[in-house]
Amino acid sequence: MQPYELSLSAAVAEIRERRLSPVELVDSVLARIDETEPRLQAYVTVTAERARESARALMTESDDPSGPLHGVPVALKDLIDVAGVATTASSRVRSEHRADADSSVAARLSASGTVLVGKTHTHEFAYGLTTPQTRNAWDPGRVAGGSSGGSAVAVAAGAATFALGTDTGGSIRVPAALNGVVGLKPTYGLVPRHGVTSLAWSLDHVGPITRTVEDAALALSALAGHDPRDPASLSAPPTNYLSGPGEDLRGLRIGVPGNYYFDHVDPEVEAAVRAAIAHLVGLGARPVEVAIPMARYVQAVQWGLMVPEATAYHERTIRSMPERYGDDIRVLLEAGELMSAGDYLRAQRARTLMRQAWLRMFDKVDVIAAPTVPATAVPAAQEVITWQDGTTESVSDAYVRLSAPANITGVPALSLPVGHDRAGLPIGMQLLGRPLAENVLLRVGRAYEETTRTREYAGRAALS
Amino acid sequence: MQPYELSLSAAVAEIRERRLSPVELVDSVLARIDETEPRLQAYVTVTAERARESARALMTESDDPSGPLHGVPVALKDLIDVAGVATTASSRVRSEHRADADSSVAARLSASGTVLVGKTHTHEFAYGLTTPQTRNAWDPGRVAGGSSGGSAVAVAAGAATFALGTDTGGSIRVPAALNGVVGLKPTYGLVPRHGVTSLAWSLDHVGPITRTVEDAALALSALAGHDPRDPASLSAPPTNYLSGPGEDLRGLRIGVPGNYYFDHVDPEVEAAVRAAIAHLVGLGARPVEVAIPMARYVQAVQWGLMVPEATAYHERTIRSMPERYGDDIRVLLEAGELMSAGDYLRAQRARTLMRQAWLRMFDKVDVIAAPTVPATAVPAAQEVITWQDGTTESVSDAYVRLSAPANITGVPALSLPVGHDRAGLPIGMQLLGRPLAENVLLRVGRAYEETTRTREYAGRAALS
Repeated sequence: MQPYELSLSAAVAEIRERRLSPVELVDSVLARIDETEPRLQAYVTVTAERARESARALMTESDDPSGPLHGVPVALKDLIDVAGVATTASSRVRSEHRADADSSVAARLSASGTVLVGKTHTHEFAYGLTTPQTRNAWDPGRVAGGSSGGSAVAVAAGAATFALGTDTGGSIRVPAALNGVVGLKPTYGLVPRHGVTSLAWSLDHVGPITRTVEDAALALSALAGHDPRDPASLSAPPTNYLSGPGEDLRGLRIGVPGNYYFDHVDPEVEAAVRAAIAHLVGLGARPVEVAIPMARYVQAVQWGLMVPEATAYHERTIRSMPERYGDDIRVLLEAGELMSAGDYLRAQRARTLMRQAWLRMFDKVDVIAAPTVPATAVPAAQEVITWQDGTTESVSDAYVRLSAPANITGVPALSLPVGHDRAGLPIGMQLLGRPLAENVLLRVGRAYEETTRTREYAGRAALS
Repeated sequence: MQPYELSLSAAVAEIRERRLSPVELVDSVLARIDETEPRLQAYVTVTAERARESARALMTESDDPSGPLHGVPVALKDLIDVAGVATTASSRVRSEHRADADSSVAARLSASGTVLVGKTHTHEFAYGLTTPQTRNAWDPGRVAGGSSGGSAVAVAAGAATFALGTDTGGSIRVPAALNGVVGLKPTYGLVPRHGVTSLAWSLDHVGPITRTVEDAALALSALAGHDPRDPASLSAPPTNYLSGPGEDLRGLRIGVPGNYYFDHVDPEVEAAVRAAIAHLVGLGARPVEVAIPMARYVQAVQWGLMVPEATAYHERTIRSMPERYGDDIRVLLEAGELMSAGDYLRAQRARTLMRQAWLRMFDKVDVIAAPTVPATAVPAAQEVITWQDGTTESVSDAYVRLSAPANITGVPALSLPVGHDRAGLPIGMQLLGRPLAENVLLRVGRAYEETTRTREYAGRAALS
């Protein structure tokens, strides 16, 4: 096994036990990047020299590795500021950009001992679900998913030990599911967004993309906590996300949606997710059918909040340099200027009601299990999905559909791989919980992971 | 002295000591209503029979008066639901309305032992600053102020022992100031609004209009407290608003605005307010000049929030029955449909920044003292005020200008009478404090009141 193949948790252990040095691990990941980038194009910028220097410095500055993620290579979605590095947002609008200071999350990772290996591609300004620059780690002819496509592909391909993404309508979970890795969208406000380019501030989240659920818990421990520079940042008490393995799920009530989450879902995806739920029931969880409240408002609320907030963020540049935006983004931003105050405030009111209804739903269950996306990765040129009943849906609408509720309501959502379709493409299940119940989601996800041991990752399959 | 002339506090004491019965007090106030209504038109509905029955029931149902406001006649602005009574909002749109249940505040007052004597006129749907149906208690040729004009005039004229109003941009404080009575806009969320017709929910407040500051404290004690049926209702710990007289203000830092609140203010109003501040300094308070932050955004933020929220509330009826609205309201509601989502969200963001800046300002001072309105009551036909520098301002803009900051920021504001101009018209001063510091405002107001003893009220002056 090469060092780049190690999970985050395994890498931390290897380095702590001095069986592996930060320089060896960073060199292995950089070599893997060289190997995979021509085919996958996950990275905007590879910070190879900086990474090697950092790794060397970590080895000399102290004999005792102190940071919990000492020497671990990380990739950051290119919306996340790192001092001295461009934050391009994968857009020509940012061609002259250079960040002055670290974002909150970059600073926290740095303090934990991670080594930045590069900045990964995003769908331009995170405003899309495919990340067309980047290719799926399992099949380069298929979409990476988005908007954190580069981060998910890098982690799946062994080109980063873990990565950060952002999630406004599913942008961590969708590419995680489509590339067979783990993605965690934390509770709104748990991980601060200072220094992260905004898509729509009332829906934006930052979170980890990892190869295992255990890794997600480890990464979240380094990321969570109050920062007053993000006005939405919560002052939540510290939580132990790393609570030991708990394969016994007796007492846990697992909500199985009777509506919405299994409507217009590919049969292979549905079968894999229902099998995973059955596996959790086999570990002792009690299934409870739940009715998703206000489901028919999800799309209108998501767009009603996202479009005007995104438009406000870009209001100057869409006028001064419209030609630098991609066509898809420019149309969305220009259309956004036509939205009325009434539409926006109705979306805000509906969100308030939806949040309350979801909180009441979580009186009855501890987690909800559902597909992350209704279909696996489509071929890169495909724009529409046709469902079995003959109805059609744009790929973007389909990919965002099952993720958006957690953005609107702010509840945490963890996507983890639960199998493959007949074409060999990964299928993701998401677990949703009540606000600040990340530890519950992580416990259930680890129980699944540790009792199925399907921890292969895309590298071997896609690049053999 | 007639019973209708008693302050709320005095009435409570007289009834408690059995020197006065609820029936005698209610009969006196109803007789006063008969006497004043032809001239003032403060009431939409006088609930005389119901009031007499309630007063009789209070006398028979128990020998021991238990409610803290036992037997006290109250008037409610006609936006506030009372079961079985119409809530007209002074609008033909509501001509067929009848409330099914008590609003939170009506239920709380009823539980405290008050007797409803009637529903008072509002500027139609509270969307204006003059209440044209009603006449000023001190000069029937002048405006009542608004939108809680009926409540302020009734209290000033002795036609209610106290009353409730609502305040979205100054609608309690403006008519209180123009009629020489006390008006308290509590902290946003302190008094629940369930069952109260909304103007703009993020700015709406309910509060008391009384003849004395002591009365405002007594009324607030009956009104404050959480109600989950108002989504903005706070879960604040109970506070004693009735803390004993404290004429010694040593240690209190009183903020005197160096900008905004004394700009474009009538010289007689300014002189009276500065004299009142000097009086507070004479009681030991230390004056501190403060700079009001983001003052030039106040008007844009107030309108940017209020117009779309009001438009959303009326979206069905403005289409189905536009002819039933007054011309001024209809134009505002129709114009509101043209506001963009961007304008609304920029107003929301500016409010967030303004709230933070105001909270920082309150690190330096305990209260801020300022005029409530920049001019006294204008003649009913006057639409524009011309300032000394030759600039002009609509009466509505002038009346709302100094009140709106407390609606935008949600801080509590107490208006109390501090003298008269040469025409004999009342002048109001407002005291503003940090969120949930009503007890500080009430303490300072009582110190002023008890050391000046200007507790005459309009009844004698206007109706002699």
